[in-house]
Amino acid sequence: MTTSSKVIKAGILGASGYTGAEAMRLLLRHPGVELTLLTADRKAGQPVEEVYPHLGGYGLPDMISVADANWEDVDVVFCGLPHGTTQEIIASLPAKVKVIDLSADFRLRDADTYAEWYGHEHRAMDLQKEAVYGLTELNREDVTSARLVACPGCYPTAVLLALLPLVAHGLIDPDDIVIDAKSGITGAGRGLKQNTLFSEAGEGLSPYSVAKHRHAPEIEQEIAKSANVPANDIRVNFVPHLIPMSRGELVTCHLKLANGKTVDDLRDAFNGQYENEPFVRLLKPGALPQTQMVRGSNLCVLNALEDRIPGRATVIAAIDNLVKGSSGQAVQNMNLMFGFEETLGLEQAPLFP
Amino acid sequence: MTTSSKVIKAGILGASGYTGAEAMRLLLRHPGVELTLLTADRKAGQPVEEVYPHLGGYGLPDMISVADANWEDVDVVFCGLPHGTTQEIIASLPAKVKVIDLSADFRLRDADTYAEWYGHEHRAMDLQKEAVYGLTELNREDVTSARLVACPGCYPTAVLLALLPLVAHGLIDPDDIVIDAKSGITGAGRGLKQNTLFSEAGEGLSPYSVAKHRHAPEIEQEIAKSANVPANDIRVNFVPHLIPMSRGELVTCHLKLANGKTVDDLRDAFNGQYENEPFVRLLKPGALPQTQMVRGSNLCVLNALEDRIPGRATVIAAIDNLVKGSSGQAVQNMNLMFGFEETLGLEQAPLFP
Amino acid sequence: MTTSSKVIKAGILGASGYTGAEAMRLLLRHPGVELTLLTADRKAGQPVEEVYPHLGGYGLPDMISVADANWEDVDVVFCGLPHGTTQEIIASLPAKVKVIDLSADFRLRDADTYAEWYGHEHRAMDLQKEAVYGLTELNREDVTSARLVACPGCYPTAVLLALLPLVAHGLIDPDDIVIDAKSGITGAGRGLKQNTLFSEAGEGLSPYSVAKHRHAPEIEQEIAKSANVPANDIRVNFVPHLIPMSRGELVTCHLKLANGKTVDDLRDAFNGQYENEPFVRLLKPGALPQTQMVRGSNLCVLNALEDRIPGRATVIAAIDNLVKGSSGQAVQNMNLMFGFEETLGLEQAPLFP
Amino acid sequence: MTTSSKVIKAGILGASGYTGAEAMRLLLRHPGVELTLLTADRKAGQPVEEVYPHLGGYGLPDMISVADANWEDVDVVFCGLPHGTTQEIIASLPAKVKVIDLSADFRLRDADTYAEWYGHEHRAMDLQKEAVYGLTELNREDVTSARLVACPGCYPTAVLLALLPLVAHGLIDPDDIVIDAKSGITGAGRGLKQNTLFSEAGEGLSPYSVAKHRHAPEIEQEIAKSANVPANDIRVNFVPHLIPMSRGELVTCHLKLANGKTVDDLRDAFNGQYENEPFVRLLKPGALPQTQMVRGSNLCVLNALEDRIPGRATVIAAIDNLVKGSSGQAVQNMNLMFGFEETLGLEQAPLFP
Repeated sequence: MTTSSKVIKAGILGASGYTGAEAMRLLLRHPGVELTLLTADRKAGQPVEEVYPHLGGYGLPDMISVADANWEDVDVVFCGLPHGTTQEIIASLPAKVKVIDLSADFRLRDADTYAEWYGHEHRAMDLQKEAVYGLTELNREDVTSARLVACPGCYPTAVLLALLPLVAHGLIDPDDIVIDAKSGITGAGRGLKQNTLFSEAGEGLSPYSVAKHRHAPEIEQEIAKSANVPANDIRVNFVPHLIPMSRGELVTCHLKLANGKTVDDLRDAFNGQYENEPFVRLLKPGALPQTQMVRGSNLCVLNALEDRIPGRATVIAAIDNLVKGSSGQAVQNMNLMFGFEETLGLEQAPLFP
Repeated sequence: MTTSSKVIKAGILGASGYTGAEAMRLLLRHPGVELTLLTADRKAGQPVEEVYPHLGGYGLPDMISVADANWEDVDVVFCGLPHGTTQEIIASLPAKVKVIDLSADFRLRDADTYAEWYGHEHRAMDLQKEAVYGLTELNREDVTSARLVACPGCYPTAVLLALLPLVAHGLIDPDDIVIDAKSGITGAGRGLKQNTLFSEAGEGLSPYSVAKHRHAPEIEQEIAKSANVPANDIRVNFVPHLIPMSRGELVTCHLKLANGKTVDDLRDAFNGQYENEPFVRLLKPGALPQTQMVRGSNLCVLNALEDRIPGRATVIAAIDNLVKGSSGQAVQNMNLMFGFEETLGLEQAPLFP
Repeated sequence: MTTSSKVIKAGILGASGYTGAEAMRLLLRHPGVELTLLTADRKAGQPVEEVYPHLGGYGLPDMISVADANWEDVDVVFCGLPHGTTQEIIASLPAKVKVIDLSADFRLRDADTYAEWYGHEHRAMDLQKEAVYGLTELNREDVTSARLVACPGCYPTAVLLALLPLVAHGLIDPDDIVIDAKSGITGAGRGLKQNTLFSEAGEGLSPYSVAKHRHAPEIEQEIAKSANVPANDIRVNFVPHLIPMSRGELVTCHLKLANGKTVDDLRDAFNGQYENEPFVRLLKPGALPQTQMVRGSNLCVLNALEDRIPGRATVIAAIDNLVKGSSGQAVQNMNLMFGFEETLGLEQAPLFP
Repeated sequence: MTTSSKVIKAGILGASGYTGAEAMRLLLRHPGVELTLLTADRKAGQPVEEVYPHLGGYGLPDMISVADANWEDVDVVFCGLPHGTTQEIIASLPAKVKVIDLSADFRLRDADTYAEWYGHEHRAMDLQKEAVYGLTELNREDVTSARLVACPGCYPTAVLLALLPLVAHGLIDPDDIVIDAKSGITGAGRGLKQNTLFSEAGEGLSPYSVAKHRHAPEIEQEIAKSANVPANDIRVNFVPHLIPMSRGELVTCHLKLANGKTVDDLRDAFNGQYENEPFVRLLKPGALPQTQMVRGSNLCVLNALEDRIPGRATVIAAIDNLVKGSSGQAVQNMNLMFGFEETLGLEQAPLFP
């Protein structure tokens, strides 16, 4: 936990959402960062403690409107704005401001795919070309030198950490991937929706967006890239479920092994890829990932497990959707972009129970 | 609220477990049943209200040891005993007592499969031959005339209601069935286990028994029977998860359609099978089953849904594991065995929120 | 399952709220009631299953606007409308329609108190004079002959069942009543509010409306009446808390005993008041009420307990806020008003676990 | 967040319990501490990751039996052992080892009171005389020079931080204190008990230990000391409740103001006492403490609020029972005892949502 003499100035756009709150939580204790800008248009003028009572008392600046932001005062912005609005705001920023985007706006490289899944033409394709996909462990070099990083969606983070090393080494059949995904309810954001009320979501379990979730094309894009095939060649089955817990995400990947490959081969690939990674933890053989192992931390825990059907395997990964699945990975990327230790500000052990 | 002049006497063996409590809850309001016997060896001598405070005040008999039971006083017993112990007790009952078994002891027809999954030889194979598999909707005739009914496991109930009509009509490939299953924590019973403590299971999500769950061979047995192939020919992928809720079970079946078949064909098969069933509800096209739709009721809600991969489909079913997945289906079977209306005592609408 | 040849026609105004849904759940199985009218202005035109998926499949009428209601078609209406709007609608109903109001509009008998707590003049004081306070067990005779019943708030139901027999017999000091109240989140309704989102209310505990809750004057009014003193003479300390559960309400009353009185005297008073009541259950000495004992049922469980401070006692009562605290008590009142058995349609045992 | 060159060696006795786990979580990131000893008799020989999977991967030592501990290897021990066993083990330690006790063994100064509440004579009254009551903010000087610190119980921590400044300044009547306390389920520990199973405690609310909780005499002892009266002169009403959440504790204190005193006076006293305290946060006037404001942090948030009854007030305090209520306060005390910054290792902001 080094104390660096260098201190950069950071802003959070859309600080009233959950990813914004989580970025605040992490950055207010980051020894290399000073939080100088918090925007939230509908909360403009309010102190942080009215928007997030648990973050009162830390001397953070009040929320202001994005229109009132003084960009001279920031070296980096974290964008937690709604999809679509992000593009124009980011396009308007001074070039010296680095951008870490938590929205989906710069994740999809193909303009048509973007338009198909988000319902409108992309408004900043030039920036899109420049954007680096911020799955840190698998894209570290590009992230380090990027000006604009598009952080992966929460599901893609867990899924791709679990699958890309297997695809890259030809260990699984990329045409037979079934992803059964489960997320805590913060994944749906802080907006007011009936299905995320406590009385609706509590004591219950709901699939949602079956065959229609926007994270599917993102996953396919990266798998195709790793398999070195055209993006349209990959189609995964992706079914998400809403789980009655606030945080946490677990993806259960039902896979077909490539000819002659075994679960040990999968574990070897994970080990080769991740053994020196501070935030990815391969469990012992047979041990099962749980969201309880990662709550509040930037960790991903994963494992490959025997299926009783010969030639198949189950790969499971768990993350905290608000940390490694969002703001934590964003801070990890920031650390690379500004020359900090990659783990700085992210050392917290998981909170259990 | 009685409509029937006939009243039978019922006993519950293992009344201190959750399936026992649920059988009590349902039977104490059943107009054709008098509860005359409750056994719970470790709670023998205790009034019901000490074992289950919510069932105090209904005039139920005290718990006694199974050794002290007066079998003359019962027409039917519900057995909620641990696996293994059930066989010998049931074998010792007078022939005039009908038996509805909630344990796994008589579900598997093959002696070797039983021994493999339960770790010991079956001790009552004669009775096993006589036992009828109590998945009511798909085995109604046999149940009606049975003396011994083996109620399906909770997962098999949901899975088989969802898959058997599809297998029977050749609509899906029985060799490519992935079942991602999710259960509330009552599914693990009332025994004291660390992983079912509130502080361990709450705010978390855990897969368990991956490739090792005893409900897998039960599912395979019934699918094979429906597909008219040897039991060993069918192997399903079955991965269960523990969900932080008390009740409810949802199975997400990732399926390959048979050549040329569509989701509409699946829905037609469901409609044909279930349109007059009081306890199975096919949702409208595209609507997603949730456990919230069935809590406390004997209902199964299900639907077949488009996958974005051509030639594949997702079938989802939800039940309350303690009702349709256990004691409710047991009462439904009892109604058939004793000539009551099949829905008697099971009319309660789901409890939501 | 009908035992009664008489069938009355019932309507629910504001059927899209939780009290409306609970009234539907209970009434659709009531053998003496046909549900002929469901209004929900913002959901007008929608089938029930879109508004409440768990109530699909029961053949209920579609939601309509209250303006489109045909009052000829109803013998009784349950009003679950927002406070304030109720008064004018009820005033406009034909005299032959009986009214069971679930809102707060007719609970307070004093016009000034109403105006003070609800922020506007009462708009139907004539009706107010006619309204009967529907705390069934303590007001049975008046309810039976009423045309308009104002059902108590959920907290007042639990508090008054616990305190009125004690006040009436002079067993406690009415000037030293501290009520620490706890409610599940359905108590806040189905409206979209940030503090009732799962991610905000889950894994947390929040006091609210300290010294400002509208149920306080309602409690005081009834205690004063029972103590035979002017309403303004009674002031209770009332602090409610939001608990991370959907249903259930528990009130912990910290009391000062009247001179020489004991906890046994309190229990005797409860016993004298409630021993033949089907829905109020006095626990054994020392046993502690829990919301788990009443979930989904119309029961109130209560007890009086020793305090370690001489001369003081603790009285605790638990109800399901949506049943005895709202729609269940409403049905209980309806049964009296129409000559049904008081328990008809309310026989369900609590759902636990 | 200073990095100190000094590193002390710490051990945790009873590391398999929740307070032990929480001490591990905090200490493994503490820059001045090396964890060299973890004992857990029934888990002896197991690596940490089998006992607490979320703490795997941090290089912690395996669990050993307390009998096998090498006391030369520790400068300080945190004792999370069951009540009673602690006394003998602590008495046997070398004098150079400092002790921070998380059990109740050294909290009560009066031998008779201890015997009355814990059912046996105290076995180390000499040590008891030496022990310092570790409510850090109100006993800082003594803690700094102590060898043996008895950390307060979780409830007393919250209650005493809320009440002692008021008692000390004569602002409230110490003879009329009603404490309605609420705790998350980790407060009951990791032992296997039926009432802490998810299915029993979830979706429910249970009072417990009414008039019998062992934290009552501890609270009374400290209030009496602050009021400068004999311990037996103070009796508080203390009623705890189990809340369906894992962490968090909130105490609602219903108080009588001393003559002429106001809520503003209470707030002034809090402000005077705590304005420079890093871990106690007085909210703005009218704002209500919630457990959500402190989860995972060492904070206590509190406020004094108007009651509608003249001459009374409500004081509410919230803590995380495992942090400020236990292991966090223990680390805070350790920091004082070893000359570290008081906040070292405890800087984490609350985790919300």
